This record gives sequence, structure tokens and C-alpha cells, in this order.
Amino acid sequence: MSVDASPEPNVVQVFLGPRSYDILIGTGILSAFARYAETWMERLTDGRAQKGRALVVTDRNLAGSHARTVLDSLKSGGWTCREAVLEPGEPSKSLETAAHLYDELVELEADRHTVVVAVGGGVVGDAAGFAAATYARGVPFVQVPTSLLAHVDSSVGGKVGINHPRAKNLIGAFHQPLGVCIDTATLDTLPDREYRSGLAEVVKYGVIMDEEFFDWLERNVAALNNRSSEALQYVIARSCRLKADVVEHDEFETKGLRASLNYGHTFAHAYEALVGYGELLHGEAVAIGMVDASRLSERLGRIGPDVTQRQKDLLEALHLPTRLPAKVKLSSDDVVATMKLDKKARAGRLRFVLPDRMGHVALVGDVPEATVRHVLAEASAR
Amino acid sequence: MSVDASPEPNVVQVFLGPRSYDILIGTGILSAFARYAETWMERLTDGRAQKGRALVVTDRNLAGSHARTVLDSLKSGGWTCREAVLEPGEPSKSLETAAHLYDELVELEADRHTVVVAVGGGVVGDAAGFAAATYARGVPFVQVPTSLLAHVDSSVGGKVGINHPRAKNLIGAFHQPLGVCIDTATLDTLPDREYRSGLAEVVKYGVIMDEEFFDWLERNVAALNNRSSEALQYVIARSCRLKADVVEHDEFETKGLRASLNYGHTFAHAYEALVGYGELLHGEAVAIGMVDASRLSERLGRIGPDVTQRQKDLLEALHLPTRLPAKVKLSSDDVVATMKLDKKARAGRLRFVLPDRMGHVALVGDVPEATVRHVLAEASAR
Repeated sequence: MSVDASPEPNVVQVFLGPRSYDILIGTGILSAFARYAETWMERLTDGRAQKGRALVVTDRNLAGSHARTVLDSLKSGGWTCREAVLEPGEPSKSLETAAHLYDELVELEADRHTVVVAVGGGVVGDAAGFAAATYARGVPFVQVPTSLLAHVDSSVGGKVGINHPRAKNLIGAFHQPLGVCIDTATLDTLPDREYRSGLAEVVKYGVIMDEEFFDWLERNVAALNNRSSEALQYVIARSCRLKADVVEHDEFETKGLRASLNYGHTFAHAYEALVGYGELLHGEAVAIGMVDASRLSERLGRIGPDVTQRQKDLLEALHLPTRLPAKVKLSSDDVVATMKLDKKARAGRLRFVLPDRMGHVALVGDVPEATVRHVLAEASAR
Repeated sequence: MSVDASPEPNVVQVFLGPRSYDILIGTGILSAFARYAETWMERLTDGRAQKGRALVVTDRNLAGSHARTVLDSLKSGGWTCREAVLEPGEPSKSLETAAHLYDELVELEADRHTVVVAVGGGVVGDAAGFAAATYARGVPFVQVPTSLLAHVDSSVGGKVGINHPRAKNLIGAFHQPLGVCIDTATLDTLPDREYRSGLAEVVKYGVIMDEEFFDWLERNVAALNNRSSEALQYVIARSCRLKADVVEHDEFETKGLRASLNYGHTFAHAYEALVGYGELLHGEAVAIGMVDASRLSERLGRIGPDVTQRQKDLLEALHLPTRLPAKVKLSSDDVVATMKLDKKARAGRLRFVLPDRMGHVALVGDVPEATVRHVLAEASAR
């Protein structure tokens, strides 16, 4: 495993007018965090000197490691800091957590120049981002994502939020970060399943919008399986760039463009809901869902079987599942019913993001339910 | 009291790019509410027909009257509706209320085309608006303000929010309404003190940006005291237009322009906090605060005594207080300390919005504390 420290990170720029920001990507860069944060704050305050003040939000698993590195860097830089430590896991995306973070911000005497720094995976980023979006009608927010899924997904898009007991991410806002700092060294300690789960979203970017990137992934399976920091820096930067290309044209998800990012997700969300969150990691469900969506595209005559086969081969080479575990038996009725409840469905009609060819997808409305059931039956017989 | 029904309301347009909206102002127009709401929804959905769905949020005092009128209109128009009834009063601006409204929206199977309709004063509008801003990252929001203060203040600006136990309006967002429907008939039943409290903000608009409007108010005291619906339609439209002129240039309060709207409020917020919310209505505190701020401006040599005297005379003619009640004894130390805690203060330095002449104000930083104390001492000796 290569862990060469790269002092000067790569930069992916996300262009969103006055809400534009940089994503820094490097290896071993967290110890210089205060320097980056200060640059971003200067931009916010038009260069006026400002005594730094930050609430660092993390979870119990990271408080002693990456969050410590960030806090140490900030404190050495003269910042006034507080730390809020959440319980790891989805239940922390709650109104109770938001209330806890508001209290911490009050204790810190936060104002509109106080930064909320999220050090963690999607749960920490989403919950801390929601508090930042709604405290004093919005305070600056910096992301330090520590899982591969968060690197390639949460870094771009500005979606923050918490769960309602009846639906994930139902309470939320769009709140772009002031900056994102990605240290690939945070992946060294990531559990294997979580690492691979992040790779599924990486593969997705290739399928939906970049055949060349998909080719590259096929040729670099070994480096990815070895968590090579060079390979990861490239993969993360490319994924963020691709997602930024979409989000820059549809920041508030009003134009339907962001739908393409949901490739594989209509199946995946249904599987996650029916199998139980946690049983199947999100990326695992997406890997299975992409293969199913691709087969659906085949059945509709949009692609030949080779496009599906390439995805299946790459996902399997990355040790990702491409079908539900044998012990899981889902009825097609339940899967279809759950798909219709998905917030992306419209008036109960089934819509899917489907490949036209490798590197390109289309949003297809009114897919016949019978065809979907056929794909589901075929998948469970595989 | 004149209550002639005006079938075609006046329209004040608030120009905020894609977030532009109309404020309708008339007398007896609430019974046609569904028609207005449908026009707004068509704009949102590019004219595509859409079965209307709304959550009507109100408080216990209004559930049987104005909220009933709005609900009846919507139901007659074929809308699917639910009603959420809050307890009247500031404690309803809480996270608990937000959670309650989220539950109601889930029960309604709300999506991004479901409208939250707030029928009430500032508390209902702020809390319902916050829920609308954060449910599914923002659903459409329509305001039906029923107090004069809400007509002339909450209708423009897009500020929504709830209170933190330690600070009012600390949790919030900017969320522009899809439209605002103001029926002056809602003022017929408004308690006298609340009606006059709204007039204080009306007077404020004249002082800060429109001498001609101030002149008009001076000449129409009798009509205002009689709650003439013609006079009120004009006063509300003009106030909304004036506030819109400010907000259109500083939607997210990043340029300091909105500060002028806080004329009188630095004193007022301190008085409200020290006397106890509810003892002194907001508009009453603002009336007193404007006279104090004007006297401060005199002491700093910015205006002659006539500018203060005109405000004092007009406020008194409208039966508003221009000094704290005799029984209230506040120490200058407490008032100054509270002012320094105000979120508009910067690094503990006192800043005030002060008149230069009738119809124009400036933001004045670094006002000597001794001068403020002098004004406070003089006021308590009056």
C-alpha cells in the first residue's frame, strides 16, 4: 500500500457562481488543514483578518484519529474550537442531533463566520451540514470526508439533511460547502466492505458519463484492490469532476439532469428498504442495481448484452456483489411496490435511468411493469 | 369601518429572479384563495395540470375563521388538504413544531409540488415557512398573513425560522414564498394593541426611506385609527413595496443593505429582552426605539430636533408609546450590555441605524457608549 505524502493537493473546482468552491485531494494533507481553512475563510471575508472559530463534528470512531488531526491543526493555527462527537450510524441523522449541534454552536458563540467542519462519512457530513445550513440561516461548512463513498458522492452536490422516522433524508437543504478536503490516507483504515461499497459509485460514474474512465478502471483493478494512493487520488478527482459537471447544470435538482446520478438506485433503494439498511451496504445495493438496470435496458432493446457484461465483470473484479445474496428471497411484488414509493417515481409510474451505450444513460419513463418483473425474476434465478 | 369587498386585489411584485413572487392585497379576497394558489402552482409546474395538495398551518385562534375560509376555498377547488393547528404564541416556534409539521407532511404524502399555506401572524408564518424550507429540501410556501405586522414585515424578505431556547430566530433559512395573499378584512378582528404595533413598522418605512409616505401617514391618522380598508390597502402595499426595494438588492443579507430595516430595533430588542417578551409588543418597543434612535442621531449632530418630533407626534397620534412605561425601570448598564449581545452588534461595538433627515437613514458604527447612555438617561427622565 502506497502512502506517499503529497504536500500539494490536487484541486477540483466546482463552479456554482457565488457558491463555487474547491475540493482538495491529496495524501497526508489533513495535518495542514488549518492552512486550507484559512484560505477559504479569507475568500469569505474579502481578505479581512478574522479570528478563526470552528465546530468540528465527527463520530466516536474518528474522534481519536482524523478529527484529532484536524483539531490539532486548527488549534496550532490559533483557532477557537469545540468538538461534537456523534454516535456512528444512521440514527445520528436526526432532529435530536441537529438540536445538539445547535447547542454546541450557541456555546461556541458562533456567528456567520464560524465554520462547521464535518470529519467523517455521509452521516456526519449530512447531519453537520444540515445544522450549518439552518443555524443563523446558514454558516460556513467545510467537509473532510473520510470514506470513499463520501469522497466521491457527498463532496459534490450540496445536499445535506437528516432522516424522518418514515423516510431517509426527508428533512434537508441545499448548502454548498466552503471547501472540501479529501485525504486518501483516511481510506487506509476503512473496513473492506465500506471501501468496496464506495467503488460501486465510482464504477457508476464511468457507466453513466465517461467510457474512457470506465476503461481506465478496467485496466487498473489491481491498483484499486490494493488501495494505491495514486490510483485513488485520480479516481476521486475524476469522480468529483464528473459529478460536478452534472451538479453545475442542475444545482437545485429542478431540471432533471441530476437524475442520471441515480443509475442503479431505483433497484438499490428497493433492495435496501426490503433487505434492511445495514444488511446490504449502499454501494453493494447499487452494484446489484446497476446490473439489473442494465439488463432492463437490454430487454428494452436499448443496449446489447456486452454493456451489462462489462459492468458485471468489473464489479466482480472489485469484489462487489452483482446479485442479491442467495439467502435473500424478495418477491417481485414487494420490489415493484417499493419502487413505486420511491420519491423519484412519479404518480406511481416507474422511471429508470438506463444505459444507451457505455458512458451514456437516458431517463426512461413509463417502463412496462411486466418487463421490470421479468428482470427481477431472471435475477433471482441467476 | 369600511369593509367593501374588492374582487380584484392589488399586486406588489417582488423581483428575485427565479424566486420572484406576487403579493396580492385586497379586502374580502380570502374566499377566492384557491384561484390565486392555482395560478401560482401553474407557474411552478410550467402550466402542467397538477392535482392540488396543501398543508394549511394556522393557530387555534384562527382555525375557525380565516383558516377555515382558506380551507373551504381549497376544498371547493378540489385540493387535497390537511390542517395543522399550532398553539398561539412564541413557544410554537420550536423544533417540536417543525417535527409536528414534518409528520403532517408525511401523512399528506407531500412531494415537491405540495404547498404549505401559513394562515396567521409571524409565529405561524415563521414556523410553517421553516418546515417548508427544509422538507424535501424545500416545498412551495404560501403566506396568508393575518396581522398588520405580518402584512408589512413577514410578507417580504423570505426569512423563516424557529427559536433556540437561548436566542430568537436562531434556527432558520431564506425561503421565498410562492405568493402572499393579504386580506385587510383579517384586521377587523385584530386586538387594538396588535394593530397599533403593526403601525409602528409602517411609520418606520416612512422614516427610513420615504418622506412622502411619512407625510401621507401624518395626513391620514384618522383613517388609520378607523382601520379604513382603503387606507390599509395603500399602507400595506406601500410598505411591502418599500421593503421589497431593499430586499431585492440584498436577498441573503450579505451586503448590509437590509440593516436599514432595523431602525429603532437595537433599542427595541434590548427593551423586549429586559422587560420580557409579551409585556411590550414588538411594535411598541420599535416605536420607543425609533424615538430613542432619533434622539441619538440628534446628539451626534446628524439631524435637528424636528425630525424626532415629527415621529413622536405621529406615533402618539396612532396611540403608540414613545417611552417605556413609567413602572419599568431599566438600568443603562443593562440596556447597553444587552445591545452588545445583539447579533447585529459586531465584536461588542455599538452600531445604529440613524436618520440623516426624514426619509433617509445611515448605518453608523462605533457610536460612543457615553452618548447612548446619555440618551437612555434622558429618556427615563422624560
